[in-house]
Amino acid sequence: MDTKAVLDTLLQHRSIRKYKDTPIEKDILHSILEAGNRASTIGNMQVYSIIVTQDKAIKEALSPCHFNQAMVNEAPALLTFVVDLNRFHKWCKLNNAEKSYDNFMWFVNGCIDALLAAQNICIAAEAHGLGICYLGTTLYTAEKIANILKLPKGVVPITSICMGYANEDVPLTDRLPLEGIVHYDTYKDYTDEDIRNIYRERENSKETKDLLEINNLPNLARVFTEKRYTKTDNVKFSNDFLSLLNKFEFMESSNDKNKIK
Amino acid sequence: MDTKAVLDTLLQHRSIRKYKDTPIEKDILHSILEAGNRASTIGNMQVYSIIVTQDKAIKEALSPCHFNQAMVNEAPALLTFVVDLNRFHKWCKLNNAEKSYDNFMWFVNGCIDALLAAQNICIAAEAHGLGICYLGTTLYTAEKIANILKLPKGVVPITSICMGYANEDVPLTDRLPLEGIVHYDTYKDYTDEDIRNIYRERENSKETKDLLEINNLPNLARVFTEKRYTKTDNVKFSNDFLSLLNKFEFMESSNDKNKIK
Repeated sequence: MDTKAVLDTLLQHRSIRKYKDTPIEKDILHSILEAGNRASTIGNMQVYSIIVTQDKAIKEALSPCHFNQAMVNEAPALLTFVVDLNRFHKWCKLNNAEKSYDNFMWFVNGCIDALLAAQNICIAAEAHGLGICYLGTTLYTAEKIANILKLPKGVVPITSICMGYANEDVPLTDRLPLEGIVHYDTYKDYTDEDIRNIYRERENSKETKDLLEINNLPNLARVFTEKRYTKTDNVKFSNDFLSLLNKFEFMESSNDKNKIK
Repeated sequence: MDTKAVLDTLLQHRSIRKYKDTPIEKDILHSILEAGNRASTIGNMQVYSIIVTQDKAIKEALSPCHFNQAMVNEAPALLTFVVDLNRFHKWCKLNNAEKSYDNFMWFVNGCIDALLAAQNICIAAEAHGLGICYLGTTLYTAEKIANILKLPKGVVPITSICMGYANEDVPLTDRLPLEGIVHYDTYKDYTDEDIRNIYRERENSKETKDLLEINNLPNLARVFTEKRYTKTDNVKFSNDFLSLLNKFEFMESSNDKNKIK
């Protein structure tokens, strides 16, 4: 067991947004996907699938779903991770077993399965010298992505990653101090002073000061709420995604109180 | 970069359900948590928290939430991963920024953040020679867990892991063949023959045959639908969890069509 090699890979992660056009060797891609397949999964049911898109035309079709970020076309592979109850339900049907997983709990179970596999895949890719970047846009345009990738009912996209050989050197991004995200025994709610301490370093960085000047805003929190992730967008995307869950049979068994109408 | 060391760690993962009472050294725990802190996170917002429970009385209180599985008390540490918009909203409030993340999209974004950090932590733990096991029960009893861990609004549990030194040797679990979970370019829906091929090895294993005899059932799919994860339970847990999301302010901005009533 080489503890240091594993920890170094985890600690040195950077999101890569510029890629060379070098394709990913077939055996390396296979080794990466095998590492995904070994991730923990609920009841060993594997209620997720991975769609590996390397075809240029399909990546181009997906590009607007990811707000036309250049890396989507540039990276040789775009992997979309989807919650997948379709495969399990088909197996149940062949075996005269009741369709039982078309409900919200299994959307969340599928998210867990898909995301643990995604992270294994990212770490394996980095161990092979490749770079990755998660695309949060996947949730915002999930229905369009579902159409392009031909997802059936019971299958919804949850995240995507670009993968390829890096064409940039990027510094390590800052993170909140560990004591800002870890609680011991039970949750200790934050005082105003705690919050100020947790965010102090980030608020005082040169990067933040530049951002405030560019955006003409008085603080970093308002860059988030007024520029990056606005309430209007969040509400729209929430409703779009809930509608998709409804349409794709993830809310079938909800009772009247919780049912999406 | 030691590719092999990283891949071996990923490929050799086993879920550990029996633990020695040896505590986890403080610096090792710190190193593991630091690896979690480096995981990818949406907009570098880190909308999750980690609750590390080592206190015996609190673990005992949580044990029924995890269906009294012995490992919860036995393992020296129980880590609960929670979606956390409370910290970010408090920061917004201190900065006169609008409360914008009390909606469904940010529940899902928080799940992604929490689960990528969780998987980093599991891999780091295994690299340090520790064992882990995910607890799917977290979702089923989320409100009880929230009460015991004193979670405020904006914070919900999504998964938990037991962590400690293994007190058992377990074989590698089987997985579906890679071609059963990976699709190229777009989703290729499964024919009946595909499904039979994907599940053949598992259906014909000695383990499955023993299970069918114990449960007096004709096939493995019906062990899942009639014994392990029944529709009745799935519907109840779905409604319980949706009610918790409503109560804990994750559905505030949903429009009338999608609002949970």
